[in-house]
Amino acid sequence: MSNFGFLDMRLVNAYDVAYREAKSAVKSQYILEQAQTYSSLAEAIAECSLVVGTTAVGHRDLHIPLYRLETGARLIREHLTSAKAALLFGSEKFGLSNDDISHCHWLMRIPVRNEHASMNLGQAVAICLYELKRDEAAVNQPEYPSPALASAESLERLTSVFLQLLVEGGYTQERTSESSELKLRRLMRRLRLPDHDAEIMLGMLRQVLWKIRNP
Amino acid sequence: MSNFGFLDMRLVNAYDVAYREAKSAVKSQYILEQAQTYSSLAEAIAECSLVVGTTAVGHRDLHIPLYRLETGARLIREHLTSAKAALLFGSEKFGLSNDDISHCHWLMRIPVRNEHASMNLGQAVAICLYELKRDEAAVNQPEYPSPALASAESLERLTSVFLQLLVEGGYTQERTSESSELKLRRLMRRLRLPDHDAEIMLGMLRQVLWKIRNP
Repeated sequence: MSNFGFLDMRLVNAYDVAYREAKSAVKSQYILEQAQTYSSLAEAIAECSLVVGTTAVGHRDLHIPLYRLETGARLIREHLTSAKAALLFGSEKFGLSNDDISHCHWLMRIPVRNEHASMNLGQAVAICLYELKRDEAAVNQPEYPSPALASAESLERLTSVFLQLLVEGGYTQERTSESSELKLRRLMRRLRLPDHDAEIMLGMLRQVLWKIRNP
Repeated sequence: MSNFGFLDMRLVNAYDVAYREAKSAVKSQYILEQAQTYSSLAEAIAECSLVVGTTAVGHRDLHIPLYRLETGARLIREHLTSAKAALLFGSEKFGLSNDDISHCHWLMRIPVRNEHASMNLGQAVAICLYELKRDEAAVNQPEYPSPALASAESLERLTSVFLQLLVEGGYTQERTSESSELKLRRLMRRLRLPDHDAEIMLGMLRQVLWKIRNP
């Protein structure tokens, strides 16, 4: 919850032993400390104008709309721009009861494989809150600017030293060196070397070439 | 992993005690049983042509591209259409080492709040795998067809019985009943009642009206 900025946890009929012994993750203790406890779901969600239940959808007969998380989260985000919403999670073992679900406007499910009718509660909460904060607009903003690629001049210098190394190192024979040069030039371009890396490689190859010339 | 259909878990230098005592979730034991252990990261990722590290991005100097999960997952999905990829998670306490990261083509991070430099490992894995299986195309396919809305005729019948009930119940006085009728008609339309629910309500109101007439 704290990872994604949802700070208002409410517990309905919390199992005291588990609740008192619960330890939060680093820097999230305040969420447990501030959590409110209620003896009925109706009280816990009183001022929320949208109430969404989560379900693994076993064989329960549903008389209420069910959305996949991708769709449901969008509807919740829209609602949250102007009003409060509650997202309900049942116990890990039994999920929400039919009585709980009758308080919901609709249900939402995480699209897991059909083989699985339940999910770890902490993971389910994390995934739902991640989806609520997911930012499609951020997708195209790289966090790390692509490094400038090596210029043709820089690549050609590298290719030339490399070829010289191959010739003097005995890999390429004089009579085949022309086709080797073409192969090497194409290979160097396929690497899409950043400028900085081309400089580093040039230094490496020059040193090795020097060593071959000065054994 | 099993929830989202990722079945190939590989462990590098697993802490034996924790690993031997690990219990999987319901119906996922096979993932732990089939997990391979390796003594080096290089062996574990040997046949993968894309290696992606995950990081909470503390104050580490990064010399490698870093993508938000939304972007990174798209790149991984594209790669997976034709080749294998490895997604690396470090220990919960320390994350991936600089040595681990040097095996990666790029890094990916879950967009958590800046206050948090780390995340529960199981939750982080669940969120990443959910995002990899997230299906934008499924967003617009409702899993529960919207019920047919009540027809104008059905709504008008309901409005009429409701108004009758309000008059005979003493809520609406004869002299104001015209404006009450308009208010009630508008209210009934705002409800966007499904046809089935309109029938149920009509039955309820008729019964109460009968009771008022036959005390």
